[in-house]
Amino acid sequence: MTLSAKFSERAANMQTAVIRQLLARASSPDIIPFTVGKPAEHLFPLEETYRQTGHIIEKYGGSALQYSSSVGLPELRQWLAERTDNASWETTQMIAGSQQGIDLCGKLFVDPGDFVAFAVPTYPSAISTLKVYGPRFLQVECDTEGVIPESAEAIFKHSPKLMYCIPNFANPTGVYMTLERRRALVALAQRYNVAIVEDDPYGRVQFEGEPLPFLYELAPEQVIYIGSFSKVLAPGFRLGWLMTAEPVFTKLMQAKQAADLQTSTYIQTLVLEMLRSGLLDKQIEKLTAYYRAQRDALIAAMERHFPEEAVFQAPSGGMFVWCELPEGVNTTALLEEALARKVVYMPGQRFFPLEDATNGLRLSYTMATPEQIDEGIQRLGLLFKQAIAAEAVV
Amino acid sequence: MTLSAKFSERAANMQTAVIRQLLARASSPDIIPFTVGKPAEHLFPLEETYRQTGHIIEKYGGSALQYSSSVGLPELRQWLAERTDNASWETTQMIAGSQQGIDLCGKLFVDPGDFVAFAVPTYPSAISTLKVYGPRFLQVECDTEGVIPESAEAIFKHSPKLMYCIPNFANPTGVYMTLERRRALVALAQRYNVAIVEDDPYGRVQFEGEPLPFLYELAPEQVIYIGSFSKVLAPGFRLGWLMTAEPVFTKLMQAKQAADLQTSTYIQTLVLEMLRSGLLDKQIEKLTAYYRAQRDALIAAMERHFPEEAVFQAPSGGMFVWCELPEGVNTTALLEEALARKVVYMPGQRFFPLEDATNGLRLSYTMATPEQIDEGIQRLGLLFKQAIAAEAVV
Repeated sequence: MTLSAKFSERAANMQTAVIRQLLARASSPDIIPFTVGKPAEHLFPLEETYRQTGHIIEKYGGSALQYSSSVGLPELRQWLAERTDNASWETTQMIAGSQQGIDLCGKLFVDPGDFVAFAVPTYPSAISTLKVYGPRFLQVECDTEGVIPESAEAIFKHSPKLMYCIPNFANPTGVYMTLERRRALVALAQRYNVAIVEDDPYGRVQFEGEPLPFLYELAPEQVIYIGSFSKVLAPGFRLGWLMTAEPVFTKLMQAKQAADLQTSTYIQTLVLEMLRSGLLDKQIEKLTAYYRAQRDALIAAMERHFPEEAVFQAPSGGMFVWCELPEGVNTTALLEEALARKVVYMPGQRFFPLEDATNGLRLSYTMATPEQIDEGIQRLGLLFKQAIAAEAVV
Repeated sequence: MTLSAKFSERAANMQTAVIRQLLARASSPDIIPFTVGKPAEHLFPLEETYRQTGHIIEKYGGSALQYSSSVGLPELRQWLAERTDNASWETTQMIAGSQQGIDLCGKLFVDPGDFVAFAVPTYPSAISTLKVYGPRFLQVECDTEGVIPESAEAIFKHSPKLMYCIPNFANPTGVYMTLERRRALVALAQRYNVAIVEDDPYGRVQFEGEPLPFLYELAPEQVIYIGSFSKVLAPGFRLGWLMTAEPVFTKLMQAKQAADLQTSTYIQTLVLEMLRSGLLDKQIEKLTAYYRAQRDALIAAMERHFPEEAVFQAPSGGMFVWCELPEGVNTTALLEEALARKVVYMPGQRFFPLEDATNGLRLSYTMATPEQIDEGIQRLGLLFKQAIAAEAVV
């Protein structure tokens, strides 16, 4: 006998994330990396980490390494709540990165067979995380202004338990949802009583324009906001937070407590003191300058080398450019050939829970050097031109 | 409308952990603390944390703060697997503390209505974590040698999906399961194909005797071993690990990936270098000496002050002494009076998933000073003598 006979029904919904498998294969240094949303390592606050370690050991002693409350350090939650409209530290929960927030929402809301909606294309690990709970997937269409209200309304009529979206510099499209669209979306969510899971890892990585309100700030009782330090401090800390209103907040806190008791006291203390030192604004200034130049290099290269049929636009923040090739060009199928040419991108198919669109791709501009960007985009441009030509012949 | 209408069925199984509520109420410095299993803070490796921070920043640079694999750092898994029989680093998964391991086992094995067994009395947060998945609870009886095979067999006939137990210095009883009982338990688990979740936070906190094999070492394909650095380094790191065989391992890894992507690269790197420096053995020497003296003080005080009807024994490791008072004495009901007398213990009821035993209590010897121990036990002894006398009158 084997224990597989004892697995739960949801075990069949667990799978190894495709992104991470690809990442492992494509991590060879001779492959030009447009795949993953890893932040550039030279931007990480290494010196500050060392300095603050000495400081917190002096200031907090053993309590920095002790158990602490499941909900998180009050001072850290206060720091976050003070910077968000309609937020309270009492309804702010520290979590181990935004992925945990998505999982807790799945745990709280989703029974097998329930509908779960995604603004598409979307973050693949959000799909695989929510899939564990056995829902049926629905797709809400987006354009360059964000979620299309008519599409949202049509989907909300199926009474999904929740809708997952990334309003700020979405993964993978880079789209910054307009204020009008934000207002329309939360109004629909209220009318149809859909929980909006607002994932916001990229909001502070803004190159141009003024910040718009979070969906949560517009309708705290309808939205679970998930913030993260992964893209603005360091992903290796694994620190994020949730904000929502009651009755959702207490249930998510209980789910968090059951999941892992609490997030690391040590990491929370370290990040708290980094925030108090004013580090975050300096980090954001540094990394937005760097990523803005990277984006410019990528867009310039795409304009230079990509086929004229390719549709893309420069994002005003975040880490990604989304590109659509003519229908019939299958970017999943082309990946092997790209790898053979020592360049790698993320095929678009996995950004759709229904996997029904195969002509898109995501390019990340965080990891490659400007020289690699031009060279890699030239190789991809050639590959895509050949694919379009082959398609036209067929 | 409110979002509570959209909650999953499992949401009704989520609750705030009683231990943590009590902890909050009883944390006043004038209350003598026998409640929680918090390690003594003066034992934490503060200087070493600072030293190793400088070292890892020099040695690893930005990669210490970057994303890393879901399964965990290979070198850390190798270090752990080399010290465990029948283990492989390839089937060792890093997790965010042992609580996460319990949750992942619940996620993988338990559907609503399934039977889940506990060796009782047991760790209350294991109960609340597994309860989220909607099982029916069964209780396997234990004595001073550990799990009673006849009780396990009777329970296994109901085909539980899994059985949770703590063979090494159990929470709350302190019992170290004998080798004979370990062999009998895994043989029964194999015969009835029950997954054994072996939680082992206290195994290295051993005062006397020789280490016995883990259940996992006796039957890797039948056991999910959960280790933790919380009691031997620091709980604030939130770092533990899982070891099991296929096909369970891959599914647990997928569940971990969906739950929070990965455990902190930074914490893993820090602890890896601490282990390589030889810190762990020094820590264990220091903390076992300290806790052994604390245990001695507690047992001596109990022998001096507790009513003769109280049944308890000195544990040979861990952090707890379990005490049973005559049936009819309700330790849950007595807690308010204990708090009024400025001393606090853990009532036994919550250590039973069926909550059917009310005459036990758990005393932790990690936090109180020897003077507090004698004073606090004197107060409790008086309270319990009064309660027994009142019970006898009725």
